[in-house]
Amino acid sequence: MRPAHSFVVIVAALSLLTCATWSQDKTATALPVSPETQSCLDCHKSVTPGIVEDWLTSLHAKISPAVAIKKPVLQRRISNEAPPEPVLSNVVGCYECHGQNPTKHKDNFDHFGYKINVVVSPQDCRICHPLEVQQYSEGKKAHAVGNLSDNSVYHLLVETIDGMKTVKGTTVTRAPATENTKHETCYACHGTAIEVKGSKTLATSLGDIEVPDLTQWPNQGVGRFNPDGSLGSCTACHPRHSFSIEIARKPFTCSQCHLKPDLPAWDVYRESKHGNIMMSKEHEQIWNSVPWKVGQDFRTPTCATCHNSLVTTPEGEVVVQRNHDFGSRLWVRIFGLIASHPQPKSGNTSIIKNQDGLPLPTTFMGLAASGFLIGADEQARRQEEMKKVCRSCHGSSWADLHFVKLARTNAEADSMVLAATKLMVQGWEKKLADKTNPFDEMLEQKWIKQWLFYANSVRYASAMAGPDYATFEYGWWDLTRNLEEMRDHLERYSAKKK
Amino acid sequence: MRPAHSFVVIVAALSLLTCATWSQDKTATALPVSPETQSCLDCHKSVTPGIVEDWLTSLHAKISPAVAIKKPVLQRRISNEAPPEPVLSNVVGCYECHGQNPTKHKDNFDHFGYKINVVVSPQDCRICHPLEVQQYSEGKKAHAVGNLSDNSVYHLLVETIDGMKTVKGTTVTRAPATENTKHETCYACHGTAIEVKGSKTLATSLGDIEVPDLTQWPNQGVGRFNPDGSLGSCTACHPRHSFSIEIARKPFTCSQCHLKPDLPAWDVYRESKHGNIMMSKEHEQIWNSVPWKVGQDFRTPTCATCHNSLVTTPEGEVVVQRNHDFGSRLWVRIFGLIASHPQPKSGNTSIIKNQDGLPLPTTFMGLAASGFLIGADEQARRQEEMKKVCRSCHGSSWADLHFVKLARTNAEADSMVLAATKLMVQGWEKKLADKTNPFDEMLEQKWIKQWLFYANSVRYASAMAGPDYATFEYGWWDLTRNLEEMRDHLERYSAKKK
Amino acid sequence: MRPAHSFVVIVAALSLLTCATWSQDKTATALPVSPETQSCLDCHKSVTPGIVEDWLTSLHAKISPAVAIKKPVLQRRISNEAPPEPVLSNVVGCYECHGQNPTKHKDNFDHFGYKINVVVSPQDCRICHPLEVQQYSEGKKAHAVGNLSDNSVYHLLVETIDGMKTVKGTTVTRAPATENTKHETCYACHGTAIEVKGSKTLATSLGDIEVPDLTQWPNQGVGRFNPDGSLGSCTACHPRHSFSIEIARKPFTCSQCHLKPDLPAWDVYRESKHGNIMMSKEHEQIWNSVPWKVGQDFRTPTCATCHNSLVTTPEGEVVVQRNHDFGSRLWVRIFGLIASHPQPKSGNTSIIKNQDGLPLPTTFMGLAASGFLIGADEQARRQEEMKKVCRSCHGSSWADLHFVKLARTNAEADSMVLAATKLMVQGWEKKLADKTNPFDEMLEQKWIKQWLFYANSVRYASAMAGPDYATFEYGWWDLTRNLEEMRDHLERYSAKKK
Repeated sequence: MRPAHSFVVIVAALSLLTCATWSQDKTATALPVSPETQSCLDCHKSVTPGIVEDWLTSLHAKISPAVAIKKPVLQRRISNEAPPEPVLSNVVGCYECHGQNPTKHKDNFDHFGYKINVVVSPQDCRICHPLEVQQYSEGKKAHAVGNLSDNSVYHLLVETIDGMKTVKGTTVTRAPATENTKHETCYACHGTAIEVKGSKTLATSLGDIEVPDLTQWPNQGVGRFNPDGSLGSCTACHPRHSFSIEIARKPFTCSQCHLKPDLPAWDVYRESKHGNIMMSKEHEQIWNSVPWKVGQDFRTPTCATCHNSLVTTPEGEVVVQRNHDFGSRLWVRIFGLIASHPQPKSGNTSIIKNQDGLPLPTTFMGLAASGFLIGADEQARRQEEMKKVCRSCHGSSWADLHFVKLARTNAEADSMVLAATKLMVQGWEKKLADKTNPFDEMLEQKWIKQWLFYANSVRYASAMAGPDYATFEYGWWDLTRNLEEMRDHLERYSAKKK
Repeated sequence: MRPAHSFVVIVAALSLLTCATWSQDKTATALPVSPETQSCLDCHKSVTPGIVEDWLTSLHAKISPAVAIKKPVLQRRISNEAPPEPVLSNVVGCYECHGQNPTKHKDNFDHFGYKINVVVSPQDCRICHPLEVQQYSEGKKAHAVGNLSDNSVYHLLVETIDGMKTVKGTTVTRAPATENTKHETCYACHGTAIEVKGSKTLATSLGDIEVPDLTQWPNQGVGRFNPDGSLGSCTACHPRHSFSIEIARKPFTCSQCHLKPDLPAWDVYRESKHGNIMMSKEHEQIWNSVPWKVGQDFRTPTCATCHNSLVTTPEGEVVVQRNHDFGSRLWVRIFGLIASHPQPKSGNTSIIKNQDGLPLPTTFMGLAASGFLIGADEQARRQEEMKKVCRSCHGSSWADLHFVKLARTNAEADSMVLAATKLMVQGWEKKLADKTNPFDEMLEQKWIKQWLFYANSVRYASAMAGPDYATFEYGWWDLTRNLEEMRDHLERYSAKKK
Repeated sequence: MRPAHSFVVIVAALSLLTCATWSQDKTATALPVSPETQSCLDCHKSVTPGIVEDWLTSLHAKISPAVAIKKPVLQRRISNEAPPEPVLSNVVGCYECHGQNPTKHKDNFDHFGYKINVVVSPQDCRICHPLEVQQYSEGKKAHAVGNLSDNSVYHLLVETIDGMKTVKGTTVTRAPATENTKHETCYACHGTAIEVKGSKTLATSLGDIEVPDLTQWPNQGVGRFNPDGSLGSCTACHPRHSFSIEIARKPFTCSQCHLKPDLPAWDVYRESKHGNIMMSKEHEQIWNSVPWKVGQDFRTPTCATCHNSLVTTPEGEVVVQRNHDFGSRLWVRIFGLIASHPQPKSGNTSIIKNQDGLPLPTTFMGLAASGFLIGADEQARRQEEMKKVCRSCHGSSWADLHFVKLARTNAEADSMVLAATKLMVQGWEKKLADKTNPFDEMLEQKWIKQWLFYANSVRYASAMAGPDYATFEYGWWDLTRNLEEMRDHLERYSAKKK
């Protein structure tokens, strides 16, 4: 039969009337809009119409917390049973978010008589979503800035890559990385530290207005330092101002940061059978349903399904609970310096100290800093949690063997890194490279590729069954080729030294 | 006019009732479900709800073979005029597939009183789809495992890439590749050899159950060795358990294996005009229609359109017949060691022997093993078959010149490989590399890239008109750059030797 | 609520009747079809059904210019107030386009009694769309062929990459690039020079027909030399024969040419928040609406939104006017040899001469050829034009700071290129490479990568906020790594020379 996509236009013509009417009612007062939000809307409808229209599509604009908390527990998207007035009884509009906690916000400013925060933080979202904020704050994402900047090894890697280089003869000198470039690169995803430098005047169509002058803005990195002292940015995944659960559940969201060559989660997913079905059947999956019913709402998982969504059977039995700590169903960490290892106990990984005294979960030779990592029981518990999702659609044996395979692959990838590290150590010993900075010379850069690009790819390819990232696209081909290049480099330069 | 996507919700609200009702009726007995399948459904509805729900969306769940074979010939998706009972009169459910040929299946086991196969094979699908299985079995896909493992050259390439390396001093030693890693890499797409090691006990919510213990499972590689002795996996392209023709027709399916850097069919397609229209108009194409009517059902082709689908004009005249031998419309082979060449006569390519005595379709210098390859007439016939598809939307001159261009490009790409091979031969002659294994040294790895990545990209880019894969993305830029690197390597090392 | 995608089928079943009827009426004469076009349709409906069906979906097939020009100005897609008869009163069919300006078209031929042009050119489209053709002709796209072939530097780069290489000993000799390969590579996007070599006979189902024999055909490059002497190809973005505004507005269209590693506009967009929302919400955006209303029709921009579409507020106030000169809202040029620079004044960039006498917008050391580039006022005006689009959805401060960041990043990327150029210059001075051709040796190829791949990526990543192209995917990681490789190469080879 001919599908309907081309023909729904006919229905739409009729529906349009209804919808247009509804849309007008909404900006008026079909649902209770606070007077403060109404003031915002009156101007911003013209000044930034895109924001207002986007918000109008959000659930925030269509329901008040008072109504939302009366839904059956599994259908709720709100975790505070009793948000205070005036938030409770109005739709969640501009002022309900941008007007929270004004005294804590260094970015608060007087805007036509209202005290407005430029940046909305998890601390503000917490008024309705305390459980989600609590979970999130415990994970690695919330600590993403400090995990980079407070870790001397990672910090050196960032500086080595991002620092401006100047050339004199054949000497290359590196200056410290600028805030600008760090903002564009690592901290674009990890989050910037937004501070208030003072205020500035903007010329607008409504005359000059005085606004806070922010550093490292705009940014929606997952671990952003906010001007109210909180960490993170909910809009990293629930983008402004629709706060769409559909967008957060689709893999494109995660793909913004989790992609090749260093972290090819999106790339592997896309070439996997799961990804292929998602791309083919996206239009038939039901993206806004809460809870998310396996088989009925979706027939292939996305990142969110396996890693954090509340999933139930079609009959409403819980398969896994929602959790905004995205590591909560993960037992092994397949990304990060140098080898795979059990997940860290704390979301703050800069506190780790390994047996070489470095703030890394393993030594360069792969020895795990076990005291800072979860134990076997917790690993088993988390793997079982993940398998519950798998077993919704796959037999037990299928799921079991998949993870046996992953464990073996992690071990093999670790060994291929260890081989490279052994060559690297010889390079350092033979003074072919200077270990003071283990990241800035040609041989070292090849070594970095071995673990950061190729071993990571092989592990992700195994975890999500994307064959090419195991093989020719940053996979075993490159693990092998790169090792040979390192060997050749070592042999050639050693010979020259003699 | 405002399109309808946002508004069909209104219609859906009404339709939901109908559909939900239908859905319940189905798991009950609106259509004839065999008692065996009903038993499966009764448990698996709770145990693996994703599978059951997926199956409910399939045509298998909506029609019995008895009804399906009464459709007009061009509309049929079934090629056996008279499947035996009880398959004939029931919908095609769990038992109809997992209960076939139990004595042939070493993976058959007693499951609550039923004799169940874990793995469904083409031999099982054959009961309703004999023509498709026959065609498939003649092509290269069905032979994908042996074409790799029984070919000494390819086998060595796999071992060289996948073998675990260990380092002592500057010596790198290679161990044989593990089954695990071969399963993750080459054989993930080609298919694994699934064998039954014995049985094992699984703890489930219904108590302990005894199941076959399979090797190299899970896998859906196109040439999988199944426990019933058959080759291939229909679910490689028609994934479980919806067996969707829509999914098989969309390019995402093929993209799982046919992708850069070695086989950039998907990547080239995506950047081509065809791919761009597909991505832009996917929602208006009609993906489930049989036959597939050019212009009316689709306005841009996908992989399936050109390579295997039954295509007719809107008025029902056949343009090309369906064929599950995916090489049946191909005259030239633009992928594979070393140079382009006429398609092989047999899907089993491990039987080829070239003039150097190697099981390759050409020698390293590009000389074709003509006896094993199709002749000029057959090449012309197949090209004409492909052009019929082109001419549905393009003038004759357009189509003709496109393939003239492809032939020239293949020749040029072959020449650029030959240039690299000539450098390689010098490397071997000068003992800068050891030809015993032509795949494991640095110069050899560059040579591999020349044919496996860059020449392939240029040819695919021509075949499907994706400009960047001809140019900067693994194209002429890299053919040229890599040749210069090989030349430089050769000159530098030769000098050192003197 | 459950979305409707799965259920609209029910509605479609009804709509199908209506639509099928409409479709038949159309190929008949529901709207006025010229007798010439009707003759075309009578045959081509069978001969090339894909073209006819595609056209039937176009606006060209659904409205006559006489009706189109009566629409309110902002809704018009036609810029000639009075096209001549018979175009005016008929739908725009085969003959209305392929029959224009027959005497100017060297590709005109007698086709069953009609004088038909094979190639439809902007000159032909101009009869209804003069403003668009005028704007287009002023931009760089219309000059894309000459900008490459008439520029001695670019021409040498093309020849160096595309020329066939042959090997004798360790000497690599380069032959001139063939037309065939240039057609497949650079000129696939830039456009080929289509000439009429004579005529040829095609055997068709209707007997032999005589058609023009064209060179470098097929091609839809943006600056194509057409057989009527005009430049460009409207079908590069509005592909045949639906001329869809939806396709042109979707980023897949631009992705055909603007992609990594040299020009990663598409790649950066896809990984940006804008791209992620587009991919997630494509189905809810309204792609055919004219004017395009921010927030209401779309909630995230595509390439077209920012670069050339007519955008209004939901209330119909113009944000930016449509402009088919795609550089009209651009102030800085972040792509092109060597450093970023103000946009050129003329779309014809081959006329530029820099202070080294080369036809490049900057010298190798980055000094701008200011006389040929727009000044500060024009730059400011254009940036303000672009910011109008940003401010539809973002606060002023957000938009301002975004572009401050871009300017800083351009400067840093330029500096990282300059560092590489300084190493390159030493290489030339020390005779480690021969500057006569600055593009063909190993060190030079690394230098090319620094500006053409890595610096471009960093700039695009900043312009459109795609973090990975600033970091590990051709970003700062590669700028740094490649510089170290160049340094190492220089030091090693210098040592050898001593």
